[in-house]
Amino acid sequence: SINSRRLWDSLMETAKFGGTERGGIRRLALSDEDQKVRDWFKAQCEALGCTVRVDEVGNMFAMRPGRNNDLPPIAMGSHLDTQPTGGKFDGILGVLGGLEVMRTLHEQDYETNAPIEIVNWTNEEGSRFPPAMMASGVFAGAFPAEYIYQQTDRDGVTFLEELERIGYRGPMKAGDHTFSAMFELHIEQGPILENEQKMIGVVTGVQGMRWYEVTVKGVDAHTGATPMYLRKNALVGAARMIEAVDAIGQKHQPGVATVGLIENKPNSRNVVPGEVFFTIDMRHPDEGALDVMEAELRAALEAGLPPLQLSYEEKRIWSSPAVKFAPELIDCVRHAASKSRFAMRDMVSGAGHDAAYIARVAPTTMIFVPCEGGLSHNEAESTSMDECAAGAQVLLDAVLAYDEI
Amino acid sequence: SINSRRLWDSLMETAKFGGTERGGIRRLALSDEDQKVRDWFKAQCEALGCTVRVDEVGNMFAMRPGRNNDLPPIAMGSHLDTQPTGGKFDGILGVLGGLEVMRTLHEQDYETNAPIEIVNWTNEEGSRFPPAMMASGVFAGAFPAEYIYQQTDRDGVTFLEELERIGYRGPMKAGDHTFSAMFELHIEQGPILENEQKMIGVVTGVQGMRWYEVTVKGVDAHTGATPMYLRKNALVGAARMIEAVDAIGQKHQPGVATVGLIENKPNSRNVVPGEVFFTIDMRHPDEGALDVMEAELRAALEAGLPPLQLSYEEKRIWSSPAVKFAPELIDCVRHAASKSRFAMRDMVSGAGHDAAYIARVAPTTMIFVPCEGGLSHNEAESTSMDECAAGAQVLLDAVLAYDEI
Ligand SMILES: NC(=O)NCCC(=O)O
Ligand SMILES: NC(=O)NCCC(=O)O
Repeated sequence: SINSRRLWDSLMETAKFGGTERGGIRRLALSDEDQKVRDWFKAQCEALGCTVRVDEVGNMFAMRPGRNNDLPPIAMGSHLDTQPTGGKFDGILGVLGGLEVMRTLHEQDYETNAPIEIVNWTNEEGSRFPPAMMASGVFAGAFPAEYIYQQTDRDGVTFLEELERIGYRGPMKAGDHTFSAMFELHIEQGPILENEQKMIGVVTGVQGMRWYEVTVKGVDAHTGATPMYLRKNALVGAARMIEAVDAIGQKHQPGVATVGLIENKPNSRNVVPGEVFFTIDMRHPDEGALDVMEAELRAALEAGLPPLQLSYEEKRIWSSPAVKFAPELIDCVRHAASKSRFAMRDMVSGAGHDAAYIARVAPTTMIFVPCEGGLSHNEAESTSMDECAAGAQVLLDAVLAYDEI
Repeated sequence: SINSRRLWDSLMETAKFGGTERGGIRRLALSDEDQKVRDWFKAQCEALGCTVRVDEVGNMFAMRPGRNNDLPPIAMGSHLDTQPTGGKFDGILGVLGGLEVMRTLHEQDYETNAPIEIVNWTNEEGSRFPPAMMASGVFAGAFPAEYIYQQTDRDGVTFLEELERIGYRGPMKAGDHTFSAMFELHIEQGPILENEQKMIGVVTGVQGMRWYEVTVKGVDAHTGATPMYLRKNALVGAARMIEAVDAIGQKHQPGVATVGLIENKPNSRNVVPGEVFFTIDMRHPDEGALDVMEAELRAALEAGLPPLQLSYEEKRIWSSPAVKFAPELIDCVRHAASKSRFAMRDMVSGAGHDAAYIARVAPTTMIFVPCEGGLSHNEAESTSMDECAAGAQVLLDAVLAYDEI
């Protein structure tokens, strides 16, 4: 069985790469901090005798051979990048939980049937370069490498420039190999397991998600000398839209709708804002409901603006449809959780995960553990040593159960 | 009479310091570009034999002696700093118009009675370091130099650090001398002169203005995994406040109310915003009306938030009361405009100006010329060569009229 303390120590050790004053992590995809944690991860895997390979979009694969190396590997994957003010567990637990499983197998000299592989997927968060889960998306054929190469951050720097700068543009074509299965261990990022005092979430799927970008255009003007009736105030238009987006989420629960990012121009105390850029994130477990939310969004954008004499552009930049995971893998997770007598419940993930894309090309599922107050994408994100260990133990047992089928 | 082409060429020459692709200027106070335009201005004044002195807050005084140097100088002042995406005339016309007057006197070997001084006031815009008109405020005793020294820009850099870095912390105490009078030539920054086809605005005063800062606090959370009913979305709260501020302006016309600057944290597409900072600018020609607007603002902030479970802090950081200019100087401007047969009208300035503070310590007034579409604080700000020249001619004639009293 896995070593809780060793797993915890690794979590705390990597938390230093981009660690913030408030106990969180700022480790944006392809930043210097991301480079450092990747180097660390590579060294740890190689110390166990694993072969580490990197593909053309920076995904890292650390492989431990099995008895039958003609079989595609069983993968355990998640991500090491974080939000600008992220926590110490989101994604990281899935990669380091995989490392802990690998260390346990190594220590016990346990020989699996299929090879076992830990994967660190590039830029899962999508916070620096949209969209989220982009590099697992390339692996799964959802978009070409060229598409994500030219994605830019808000400073106009491209994914490709940064990938090359940190030295993680690998020679391997993304998706040139497949998996027998992939298991992703993750914190829940919501309140359900904690509220119901369950240890393990058996994840049956992921809700659908869509991202939009909106630019509202008015005219820069002097705040003192421009009469109210002559203004074209883009920020007032954006404010109405932000409220409308929230109202759509409220109306379509359990769906959600959020404006997370806003940029105001020229952003000066005495200038009437002439241009506002903002993003919208809408999700629902049901694609039909998402279509309705999208239609309502467009109607709200149209309705809010005419009296303000503003124009706007709206673009859907990403859609990741609702996903159902593989029943045989879900059974392995249930079996593994029962073995350790952990209280569990089935759930659909509210957050997007690399597993959602990998499910297109290989049998895939996820394992959730609780997080305090359901808080994630927050520096205060917290999961206990025991909860992390429980997740890694279920990951180990589910992988071995699958390996034995 | 003044040389229109020479004035225009100087306007275009200085527009290169911080010139933008769209024909505007980005020359924030105490930036490298500000340093360059100051160096240029100093050299031009010295070439005319003026003595250039700098005070402790960076205000620049270029003096040409008169017959009677016991008299305090007659000043012509405005500012050379701009908004982040400002135009080529706001403030600059007042300083370079003064320079053109000085060049004309020099060329004609005209000896004035009192000394004549051109002033470049530091950081009039208040865009980088709040509040606006801060260094003329120190000159006039509205606040101590120490207060503005420790004001910071949005990156946390102090006024004093930047003042020293660009080499414009002078030895002179601010306000250690006075003026016989100050005339400030400026573009109107509003639509009235253009609409009524007048050439000259005879400015009788400046409306009252107040600045506020608001921070709304909620909780960072995951946009996908956090149910709508559990959110504390600071940006939704801020959006309601932005609309409320606009509504207060609409209700109290000719008053105005604007949110010009907003910063959202952590500003990521898939994070429910946990904190929003924004600024409010409210103005009215009548102080009593401003009190009512302020009371309504506070009520609106209180009212909007409880259902959203947010908290907020609000602080009034600046108040510049309504100002009336000196009747004898206003008469000089009327006289000067009549002399050139320019159509004119009286008006109250909607924008704040250094003249508003200087009016506390010396007889002061302003001269306005039209700007296209009333547009200012915009890269497209535009005033013709003839209009600039008309303003400078009226400035010259008003200064000489006052000098002869
Ligand atoms: N798990 C996680 O936080 N993923 C980021 C992608 C998203 O759900 O927005
Ligand atoms: N004239 C001018 O634009 N001044 C800036 C101060 C203000 O009115 O906001």
